[in-house]
Amino acid sequence: MKFICQKNDLLQAIQTVSKAVSSKPQNPILSGIYIKAENNTLELQATDYEIGIISKIEAEVSEPGNIVLSGRYIQEVIRKLPGVTVEFEYDRQEKISHIRSNRSHFTLLSMSADDFPIIKKLEANKSFTIMDNVLQELIGRTTFACSNEEARPVFTGCLLELNYASVVMVSTDTKRLAIQSKVLEDFEGQSKMIIPSKILNEIHKLLSSDMPRPVNISFNSNQISFEFDNTYISSRLIDGQFPDYHRVVPNDFGTRIKLNTEEFRSVVDRTALISRTNDYNVATMEFANGMVRITSDNPEIGNSDESIAAEIDGDDIVISFNADFVSDVLKIINTKEFYMSLNNSLSPAAIRMLDDESFTYIITPVRTPGQ
Amino acid sequence: MKFICQKNDLLQAIQTVSKAVSSKPQNPILSGIYIKAENNTLELQATDYEIGIISKIEAEVSEPGNIVLSGRYIQEVIRKLPGVTVEFEYDRQEKISHIRSNRSHFTLLSMSADDFPIIKKLEANKSFTIMDNVLQELIGRTTFACSNEEARPVFTGCLLELNYASVVMVSTDTKRLAIQSKVLEDFEGQSKMIIPSKILNEIHKLLSSDMPRPVNISFNSNQISFEFDNTYISSRLIDGQFPDYHRVVPNDFGTRIKLNTEEFRSVVDRTALISRTNDYNVATMEFANGMVRITSDNPEIGNSDESIAAEIDGDDIVISFNADFVSDVLKIINTKEFYMSLNNSLSPAAIRMLDDESFTYIITPVRTPGQ
Repeated sequence: MKFICQKNDLLQAIQTVSKAVSSKPQNPILSGIYIKAENNTLELQATDYEIGIISKIEAEVSEPGNIVLSGRYIQEVIRKLPGVTVEFEYDRQEKISHIRSNRSHFTLLSMSADDFPIIKKLEANKSFTIMDNVLQELIGRTTFACSNEEARPVFTGCLLELNYASVVMVSTDTKRLAIQSKVLEDFEGQSKMIIPSKILNEIHKLLSSDMPRPVNISFNSNQISFEFDNTYISSRLIDGQFPDYHRVVPNDFGTRIKLNTEEFRSVVDRTALISRTNDYNVATMEFANGMVRITSDNPEIGNSDESIAAEIDGDDIVISFNADFVSDVLKIINTKEFYMSLNNSLSPAAIRMLDDESFTYIITPVRTPGQ
Repeated sequence: MKFICQKNDLLQAIQTVSKAVSSKPQNPILSGIYIKAENNTLELQATDYEIGIISKIEAEVSEPGNIVLSGRYIQEVIRKLPGVTVEFEYDRQEKISHIRSNRSHFTLLSMSADDFPIIKKLEANKSFTIMDNVLQELIGRTTFACSNEEARPVFTGCLLELNYASVVMVSTDTKRLAIQSKVLEDFEGQSKMIIPSKILNEIHKLLSSDMPRPVNISFNSNQISFEFDNTYISSRLIDGQFPDYHRVVPNDFGTRIKLNTEEFRSVVDRTALISRTNDYNVATMEFANGMVRITSDNPEIGNSDESIAAEIDGDDIVISFNADFVSDVLKIINTKEFYMSLNNSLSPAAIRMLDDESFTYIITPVRTPGQ
């Protein structure tokens, strides 16, 4: 096996597949990156059995072959190489890979590719295409509300619901719920699946290019794959029943408040200095007389108290939330103003952006002493 | 106690004194920052008994007084305040401090200033003045070679040696030694002391302004103080006998090599990818035929091998070093080229900058198998 390629192409492919290299591999071969050289193409693969990533780049292959290299060392070595190109040669007898760039020469012990669990392309029964910026928004506006508790796997993933021209992504940790919907062009029929949020977050990072590009998504009953540019990612789906989220969204609200996003974000941020020292991170909001007063209290530290303008349509109300659940959603709101809709101190509230009906966030209030 | 001051002034003073707030205070009061308001000046203090810092700022004081506030919360609250000014008022009855800025209002429980160990100005018997950029260089070029092992306190500090017109700072962890000398104008006589490197590093951070300014240093047999702008820092000195560093510096060398700093730094950096996986972080250098070849080897991972040009004056030589000890000094070398001076594989080497005689670094080689 022998090839020459561009250092930056190789580094990028290594960084892409590295996201599937487990830090605590079940098996030593899974700590490695599989590299196959053939037909002037390098194919890199890594998998931890839950997720598998393939990335392809161009190379001048003078001798085809395949090999597995330690994911950790190959990434560091390639990143630091001095030249623009990399010469790679595998010495089958010594089981050593030679990596040369300018006057720098590294040798790395290598593992046999025979032991590597080659990623098989998914046998899909359904597929659709989505633009990466649309997929980015579906992921970026929902995964933050997933649970981290592995004990209830359904809540560690996002529900993807396809219904002809509509795609909806939903996440919940049972205390709050995020829903993002988008229009889809080429899907026929209905499908539902739960995708691990960890994998969605990795895809979100990999999709950060400037040029919008199509992503092909295929799936069957227990796996999903994402394909874009020269990258292929397959993941298991989470087994289980996602709760009926429609039932959680109130039909109407007694009070609707319009707030300035930046101003509100900055107040919640300051309130959190006190609230996060509490057991339940409680911030209390009093909506009355065209103002919202936000307070938080910790008898052992002190309290915070601040008021900003609020356009209140409906009854006055006092309600308490976990401050993190409010600040999490404020991070993704990109409109200058947003709506908070309320019924009473004990009923779920909704947060929506101005002129963007596609996103809904439902948040359960915290019951405070005296309620 | 009541005052109004500029938020940024107060924040800077808090950040300055915070460096003396222990994260594991011996006594709850030491987790606090003492604030005294008097004569339109705020004086902030913090101490962990090893180091004490005082910082003064201007304020409109309408009611003098003093108080101690939690170092952790006061810093976070002041940093996040929305306004340009801060109004502060202490309610003696409730033992609560009110902090107001724009529409934001925080209250913080406060501690009595009576329990705070007020920092006394040092009763010094000697003092001198040094420009901060000169002090920066003395500190920046030596503390990195100090030891972290508290078991041998002498090596956790830097020796400061004053000898009329000369000031020398020296550090060693017994395997390498850094010496930086400077010219001093206003000191009469001779003095020696060992200053904790931790405190020198804090002073280094605090001195990072653009305008050169004088620093007044006073000391007695067990304490030292640094005074600049509105800041006063006092520290204990380390008791003990610093080794005679003159004896460690070889008088002459059989081989002197001139190397390009940037090129050599980049090779050592790559070599470290392999060497740091070894027990002793060994990089081997072969100087011969106008080149230096740098190699490192780990039988379980692989090896690195790279050559760059070297201007060799004297005998050829092969020598091994701990790669970290070489890369540490390369970080502070700011000349385009530098000298490495050697005698043989087992004798200490010297590293000096080109056209800058003020700095000397001595490094003990590593004995490798076969030597």
